[in-house]
Amino acid sequence: MFDPVEKLKEFIRHPSVSTDSKFREGMKGAQEFVSGLLTSLGFSVDVVKTELHPIIFAQRGGDPGWPHLVIYGHYDVQPADPLNLWKTPAFEPTIIGNRIYGRGAADNKGPLITNIAAIGEALAENPKLPLRITFLIEGEEEMGSPSFPKFLERYAGKLREADFVFLSDTALPNENQVVLTAGLRGLALFDVHVTGAKGDLHSGLHGGVLHNPIQALAEILATLHTPEGRVNVPGFYDAVLDVQPWEREELKKLGADEKAYARFLGIDTFYTTPGFSPFESLRFQPTLELNGIGGGYQGEGTKTVIPSKASVKITCRLVPNQTPENMKDIIFNTIRDRCPPGVTLVIKEQHHATPYVVIPPDRTNTPKDQSPVLARAFRAADKAITEVWGRPPLYLREGGSVGLIADLKKVLGLDAVMMGLFLPEDNLHAPNESFHLGVMKKGIEASEKMLAALAAG
Amino acid sequence: MFDPVEKLKEFIRHPSVSTDSKFREGMKGAQEFVSGLLTSLGFSVDVVKTELHPIIFAQRGGDPGWPHLVIYGHYDVQPADPLNLWKTPAFEPTIIGNRIYGRGAADNKGPLITNIAAIGEALAENPKLPLRITFLIEGEEEMGSPSFPKFLERYAGKLREADFVFLSDTALPNENQVVLTAGLRGLALFDVHVTGAKGDLHSGLHGGVLHNPIQALAEILATLHTPEGRVNVPGFYDAVLDVQPWEREELKKLGADEKAYARFLGIDTFYTTPGFSPFESLRFQPTLELNGIGGGYQGEGTKTVIPSKASVKITCRLVPNQTPENMKDIIFNTIRDRCPPGVTLVIKEQHHATPYVVIPPDRTNTPKDQSPVLARAFRAADKAITEVWGRPPLYLREGGSVGLIADLKKVLGLDAVMMGLFLPEDNLHAPNESFHLGVMKKGIEASEKMLAALAAG
Repeated sequence: MFDPVEKLKEFIRHPSVSTDSKFREGMKGAQEFVSGLLTSLGFSVDVVKTELHPIIFAQRGGDPGWPHLVIYGHYDVQPADPLNLWKTPAFEPTIIGNRIYGRGAADNKGPLITNIAAIGEALAENPKLPLRITFLIEGEEEMGSPSFPKFLERYAGKLREADFVFLSDTALPNENQVVLTAGLRGLALFDVHVTGAKGDLHSGLHGGVLHNPIQALAEILATLHTPEGRVNVPGFYDAVLDVQPWEREELKKLGADEKAYARFLGIDTFYTTPGFSPFESLRFQPTLELNGIGGGYQGEGTKTVIPSKASVKITCRLVPNQTPENMKDIIFNTIRDRCPPGVTLVIKEQHHATPYVVIPPDRTNTPKDQSPVLARAFRAADKAITEVWGRPPLYLREGGSVGLIADLKKVLGLDAVMMGLFLPEDNLHAPNESFHLGVMKKGIEASEKMLAALAAG
Repeated sequence: MFDPVEKLKEFIRHPSVSTDSKFREGMKGAQEFVSGLLTSLGFSVDVVKTELHPIIFAQRGGDPGWPHLVIYGHYDVQPADPLNLWKTPAFEPTIIGNRIYGRGAADNKGPLITNIAAIGEALAENPKLPLRITFLIEGEEEMGSPSFPKFLERYAGKLREADFVFLSDTALPNENQVVLTAGLRGLALFDVHVTGAKGDLHSGLHGGVLHNPIQALAEILATLHTPEGRVNVPGFYDAVLDVQPWEREELKKLGADEKAYARFLGIDTFYTTPGFSPFESLRFQPTLELNGIGGGYQGEGTKTVIPSKASVKITCRLVPNQTPENMKDIIFNTIRDRCPPGVTLVIKEQHHATPYVVIPPDRTNTPKDQSPVLARAFRAADKAITEVWGRPPLYLREGGSVGLIADLKKVLGLDAVMMGLFLPEDNLHAPNESFHLGVMKKGIEASEKMLAALAAG
């Protein structure tokens, strides 16, 4: 078996920034590195061409009666800018203490090597391991996976017979507590553009005569929340899945400290959906968040202009069972209804992601028709994590979004076992990204035990 | 006497952009050009050093019994950018039809040459013209006249004995109708900064927990106007000078067309102070205008961030008898009161200007103690304009601001006769600035007649 840390170093050295064509060589290198590693473990590897970065589709077949898991991951990384804030070179892996630093160390190269190493160990232990395994490793995750839907259509036949998806692209709250992620929020992203006069105007010559688009936009935005913290859009909460008592209990076990969280954020007052603690609100409740606003003169000093245009970028984080399509409809209609006279309004849709929930076995709300292999996988993961970490995992929904997971569920009917492996302090998408080597070691051990138990039946 | 158009060409060729040190030579050239021109007319010229661009202080003395007027103007111009939008070179004067194109042609080089040429003609006609004349021509008007207050303190003694100020740095509504500007709006400029969390946050990991500064700012801004168009700040209108029936009558004579104005602006609905037509609102009513807003991510596509900061730039146009000091107090307090919990707010003051009003003689509200020389100057200007243009001037307040005028009134007690000489289509502060040569010719003739009548007593 290979040395996982050495392989992770090699992986990080390929600067695989998918959004920047300057990194074409790095993308190719990372893809070939992963393909080679899977080939060396006996996988039959297809490098599936897309319009941009290929998807690695690697299979280990076997008896149709064996459990079949799809392991998802991605070989691309976020841009490393601003480079001057890095303490070590972004694409030169550097170990300091129990952490390895480098762009992509935690998102997703470290967790992906953890998964591959676990497979490697399990196969070294038992070359005849009765599991069918498909790796699905894309190179466009950091750009919103634009090629994935087409790929999914083409490969649906080969994937539909799988039993579940396994991935490590979510978080654990601290190095001593693993979370098996029980749900993800979805996304609806859009921009609102407001236009007043046909050009910028001198505020002395024309001020006091017409509606200012910044003011009109502010007037619309101010209506979108109640002072108490609810999103003030009729029907916004209608489809929201009730939180089960076991979910609240599970969250309590986490023992998160509100005061410490407020200190971390640098705020003195929380602003949550009424009836929900901050930790509940960010996992169980949808949001309407203003990501950016712009209009008129923003430079130094002053310019006495009445701007012609103003715009805002909005993200809604959605929760099960909201759908981006329905939510966009009601939000867009509400915004249009609230636009004051004298200005025109255009809404521009950006991408979206469907929220996802998976309920582990033996819960009050576990679906009666849950796949027995999925249930076995959850039990195997629970047992393995408990043995390795010395305490059982928690089953928590997460505030973030991995859009693919709901797509895989919708198109293929596959649920996901998500073993969180990155920590809040890993600095994903930021300078000085790192991955905890202790978590990596335990993650390999726990995943291997889980696979072995699943294979044993 | 010199040829005014040739002199204007020479003046425009000096690229006197005061805000950009690259144009130091152009500033020097323009200053020396004006100083030379005034010297050639027999003025005793002081070039008064300031921290940046000198002020030209040129005097023609005489019998203490003679009327004494101060002529104000400026030799600096706005930057010419964006240069690619100019159809002729910005600093190469070009005559097309009855217009001369070039940066500064209308603001303020053309009107200033008009004034100087009128003096030249009057002195050529009567070298013993019984008028004392002081030119006060600054080089920092386009940067907010930062050196002027200090200069005013130093030269107060020499200026206080003057009778009134004469200037041509305001507008006429069309080439057939002159306005003697009866008032100017003031200004109060400030920025509002709102801060939430101590850094930008991932909207998936933290969305639904804290107040978003863009939202908080929008909530504040949305309270600042009523849907009907009044500024919703308690006390905002308390000091506003009542509009006199004669002022409304004067405005009616202008015969401005609301539909044409709406077309010019590119809007379908006006939004004015209730009870005021658009033309009244922009002359007689104060405003609170949002000049620019910014916060969070404003680039292409999306970034799912909860920004840490948002800010807005605000201009209030003030009217007599509001003062910037009082208005800032009540506006700042209102904004602070309306800031929601969970964010912090800082207001940063920018510069300000006091509004100004001067009432011509023989009106219901003309001050009883109006200077007889000022009254004579108004009557002389009225008669001269009526003779040259074939119709009397209108006495209208203007929506814009010339901060110096209120300062001269406050410090020296001097009122101003403002003969508007630039047209709405002259493109001040914009590419393809031009000045109407017909207006220039009539302006010289009318000013000369006015001076001669004033001298005649």
